[in-house]
Amino acid sequence: MNLKGRHLIDPGDFSLLELESIFRLAEKIIENKDEYSQICKEKILGTLFYEPSTRTRLSFEAAMLRMGGKVLGFSDANVSSAAKGENIADTIRVLSAYADVVVIRHPKEGAPRLASKYSNIPVINGGDGGHQHPTQTLTDLLTIKKLKGSISGNTVGFCGDLKFGRTVHSLIKTLSRYPDNKFILVSPEELRLPDHLRHMLKNIAQVEIIETEDLETVIGSLDILYMTRIQKERFFNEADYVRLKDSYILTRNKLSEAKEDMLVMHPLPRVNEISYDVDEDDRAAYFKQAEFGVYARMALIAAQLGVGNNA
Amino acid sequence: MNLKGRHLIDPGDFSLLELESIFRLAEKIIENKDEYSQICKEKILGTLFYEPSTRTRLSFEAAMLRMGGKVLGFSDANVSSAAKGENIADTIRVLSAYADVVVIRHPKEGAPRLASKYSNIPVINGGDGGHQHPTQTLTDLLTIKKLKGSISGNTVGFCGDLKFGRTVHSLIKTLSRYPDNKFILVSPEELRLPDHLRHMLKNIAQVEIIETEDLETVIGSLDILYMTRIQKERFFNEADYVRLKDSYILTRNKLSEAKEDMLVMHPLPRVNEISYDVDEDDRAAYFKQAEFGVYARMALIAAQLGVGNNA
Amino acid sequence: MNLKGRHLIDPGDFSLLELESIFRLAEKIIENKDEYSQICKEKILGTLFYEPSTRTRLSFEAAMLRMGGKVLGFSDANVSSAAKGENIADTIRVLSAYADVVVIRHPKEGAPRLASKYSNIPVINGGDGGHQHPTQTLTDLLTIKKLKGSISGNTVGFCGDLKFGRTVHSLIKTLSRYPDNKFILVSPEELRLPDHLRHMLKNIAQVEIIETEDLETVIGSLDILYMTRIQKERFFNEADYVRLKDSYILTRNKLSEAKEDMLVMHPLPRVNEISYDVDEDDRAAYFKQAEFGVYARMALIAAQLGVGNNA
Repeated sequence: MNLKGRHLIDPGDFSLLELESIFRLAEKIIENKDEYSQICKEKILGTLFYEPSTRTRLSFEAAMLRMGGKVLGFSDANVSSAAKGENIADTIRVLSAYADVVVIRHPKEGAPRLASKYSNIPVINGGDGGHQHPTQTLTDLLTIKKLKGSISGNTVGFCGDLKFGRTVHSLIKTLSRYPDNKFILVSPEELRLPDHLRHMLKNIAQVEIIETEDLETVIGSLDILYMTRIQKERFFNEADYVRLKDSYILTRNKLSEAKEDMLVMHPLPRVNEISYDVDEDDRAAYFKQAEFGVYARMALIAAQLGVGNNA
Repeated sequence: MNLKGRHLIDPGDFSLLELESIFRLAEKIIENKDEYSQICKEKILGTLFYEPSTRTRLSFEAAMLRMGGKVLGFSDANVSSAAKGENIADTIRVLSAYADVVVIRHPKEGAPRLASKYSNIPVINGGDGGHQHPTQTLTDLLTIKKLKGSISGNTVGFCGDLKFGRTVHSLIKTLSRYPDNKFILVSPEELRLPDHLRHMLKNIAQVEIIETEDLETVIGSLDILYMTRIQKERFFNEADYVRLKDSYILTRNKLSEAKEDMLVMHPLPRVNEISYDVDEDDRAAYFKQAEFGVYARMALIAAQLGVGNNA
Repeated sequence: MNLKGRHLIDPGDFSLLELESIFRLAEKIIENKDEYSQICKEKILGTLFYEPSTRTRLSFEAAMLRMGGKVLGFSDANVSSAAKGENIADTIRVLSAYADVVVIRHPKEGAPRLASKYSNIPVINGGDGGHQHPTQTLTDLLTIKKLKGSISGNTVGFCGDLKFGRTVHSLIKTLSRYPDNKFILVSPEELRLPDHLRHMLKNIAQVEIIETEDLETVIGSLDILYMTRIQKERFFNEADYVRLKDSYILTRNKLSEAKEDMLVMHPLPRVNEISYDVDEDDRAAYFKQAEFGVYARMALIAAQLGVGNNA
C-alpha cells in the first residue's frame, strides 16, 4: 500500500485497504510512540486555514510536532494573501515551495480539491464548507476500530442535526462501505438526513436504516451512539431553535437504557447536547476520540510523506 | 523537591522551598545553557491565550524553544472553539491530548484554576483578569535574587497604580512570605493598595509598610524601586487621568537621590512612567528582568515536566 | 566576507561583494540541502509583523525551519504590546532576549532602521511602508543569477505601477549598481517612475533607460520582464482604476513576440496582471522566484547568525 504523494480530499479517495493501512500505522504509532517521534524531523506541514478552526488546526499541529516535524501557516484568511485577491491555485503553488504537506480549511466547497490540482505536495482537506471533513472521519473510524474492535458489524445511532452535519454525512457514507453496519437515525423531522444520502444508503449501499424522532426507544439497541450539535445558525427562526435545541440531549438517565459497552461519540466541541454527568461514564468516548484524532492524522501525514514504514 | 505534574495558578501554590528549587534550576540553566538546550526535545507547550498578551506569550514560547521543545496554541479567543460556546473544561481535556504542559491567559478570574481541575497535564496561569500572574512574580523574584543576591532583607518601593496592578499585588504578597523585607508604597491617594492587602501585610504577615504620595522623599532609602504604569482604562474620568498620569514618572534627575545599587524594575511594557534617559543608568534592570523572565519560565516548565534534574 | 551580526534594512547596506557572498551561500544550500538542514538547530527567528503579510512571513518561517531553526512572533499588531502604546525600541530590546535574529514588517517607513539601533540581534527589514523590502530584492537577484547566469548585462523591462511599487524601486536601484544593465520602463503616464529615481539612474548610475506606455513594442528586446500589480488602493478615483487596470496585462499572445529565453518575473501575489495561460510557458519564472525567495532568506539568516560557513 503506497499512499506517498496522495491527496485526501474526500474519504472516498482512499480504498478500504488504503484506509486500513492508515489505521494499522496509527495503531503501531500508539503502541510505540518513541519509534515515530522523529520520523518527520525535516518535514514541514503547511496549515492554510481560510476559516478558523482551533480544534482541527491544533490536532494537525500536534500530529506533526509529535513526529518531530514543523508547522507553518495561517489561521485566519484576513491575515493572508487571499485578502489581496490571490486565488488558491497561486497560493498552493507558492506554498509548495515552503512545506512538504499541506492541510486546507476553506469556507467554499471544492476549494481543497481545486488546490490539489495545482499542488506539488500532498493536500489534506481540513474541512470545506458543509461538504467534507475526511480527517474527522478517519478519527471516528480509528476510534471505533480501537474501542469496538471492528469497523464492521455495528449498529450505529446518529442523533441530532442529520441534515447539515458534514461530519455525520461523511461518516455514514464511509461506514456504509464496510460490511454489516446498521444505522439508526434519530432527529427531529426538520433535521432529517438529506434525501440523496438516504437514497444512496437504501439503493446503492443497500444498508439497513431506521429513522425515528425518539432517542430513548432505540438507545438500547445501539453499539455506538454518535451525538451531534444542533447549531443555532442552521435555523431560519429563533422559535424553532428554542423548541428543538434541547430535544436531543444525552443525559445519564437516558444512558441507563443503553448497552454496557455502547460508545458515546461526538466530534466536539459540544455545547449542551451531552450532559456533563455523562463524562464520568465509561461509555463516554469523545475525549479519547479527540486523542485518536491526533494518531489518525499522524498516520495519514506519515503515509503521504512516505516516512515511517520501516520504523 | 518534586514539582513534576504540579499546576501553578497562584504563587501561593508553591512553598518557599519549592520556589527556591525553581530559582536554583533557573540559575543552573543561565550558567550552562547548552546543557539544557534539548531537555524538552519531544515535549509540547500549549498556549491558550483567550486574551492577547504578546509579551507573556513570546516569553513562554522562547522558554520552551530554548529547551528544544515545541509550541502550539492560539493567541486570540476569536480564533478558538470558545467562539463556538465550548467551556474551558472541555477545551483543556482535549488540549491534554495535544500538549504536555499548558499556559492559559484568560480575562476571567479563576478560569485557569478551573481548567487545572480537568487537566491531565500541568497548567500554568499566564494571567487571569486582575487576579494573578504568577510567572511575572517568579520573574521578579529571580531578578531580585540574581541582582541583589537575596530575596530577603530588602526595602522595596512600589510606585504608581497600586490599586489595580495585579503584578504588584502578587509580588507584594509573595515578598511578604520572605523574612525582613520592608515595603514603601508610593501612589496617589486614589490608587492606594487595596485594604485587604494592607490588612494582610500589617496583621498577618506583620510586615512594615510606609505609604506616601511622594517618590522623591523616599527614593534614597530603597534597595529596589518597582515602577508600574497608570493605565488610562482604570480611570473613571479623563480629568483624573490627565492630572495623575505624570505624577509618578521616574526621571534621571529623581534617580540621583537613589542608592548606587538600587534596582529599577518594571514589568513592561512601559509607556512613559520611566524616562528613556534612565535606560542607560546601571540601576535600570527592566530589560534584564525580561531576560530573566525566560529563564524563570524555562525552570518552571522543566520542573513541571520533570526533566532536566540530572542535566 | 563576514556578515555576522549585521542588519539588513536597505539593499544598499550590503556591498556587491557582500551580496555576492549571500548568493554563493544560497547556491550551495540549493545544491546540498541536507548539509544545511540543521545549521540553525538552536537558533530562534523572531517575526514582528506589525502589518499582515503572509507571503513574506511564511517565506521567512520556511527558511528558518529548513535550517532546523525555530520561529516565534506575531502576525498582527493588534495582538501585540504595540496596542498598549509600547514603542519599537522597547519591543526590540525585549525581543533580543527571546530570539537570535528578527524580521520586522511595519507600516511606517524607517521603523526597522530605528529598531536596529536598539537591537542586540541582527534585524531584517521585512518591508516598511512604501519604502524598502530588501529580501524581495535578494530574491529577485538570486532568481536572475540562477536563471540568466548573471545579474549584469541584461535588458530588464519593468511593467505596471512604477510609481508606488517599492519592489520595483528597490530592484532598479540595486540592479543599477551592477554593470551593463539597461532598463525599459513600461507604465501609464500616471504611474511612471518617480523623478528622484529617474534622476538617480540617469545622472548618478548613468544607466540607460527607455520609457514607454506600450509593452508590445518593446517586449522583443527584453531579457527579463518584471510585471507588477496595479493596486486599486493607489488610485484617487475609481474611473482611473477601471480605465488603467487592464492596460498592462501579460497574455500568451503578447508573449509570442518575446525572446525564447526571456524571464517573466513577478513578486506575487498577482491578481490578473499575468493571464493564467502564461503559467505553462517555460519563460514564466514567478513560482520559481517564490522558491528562490526561501533560499535567499536561508542564506541571509545563516550569514547574519554566522553559521553554515563550513557546512
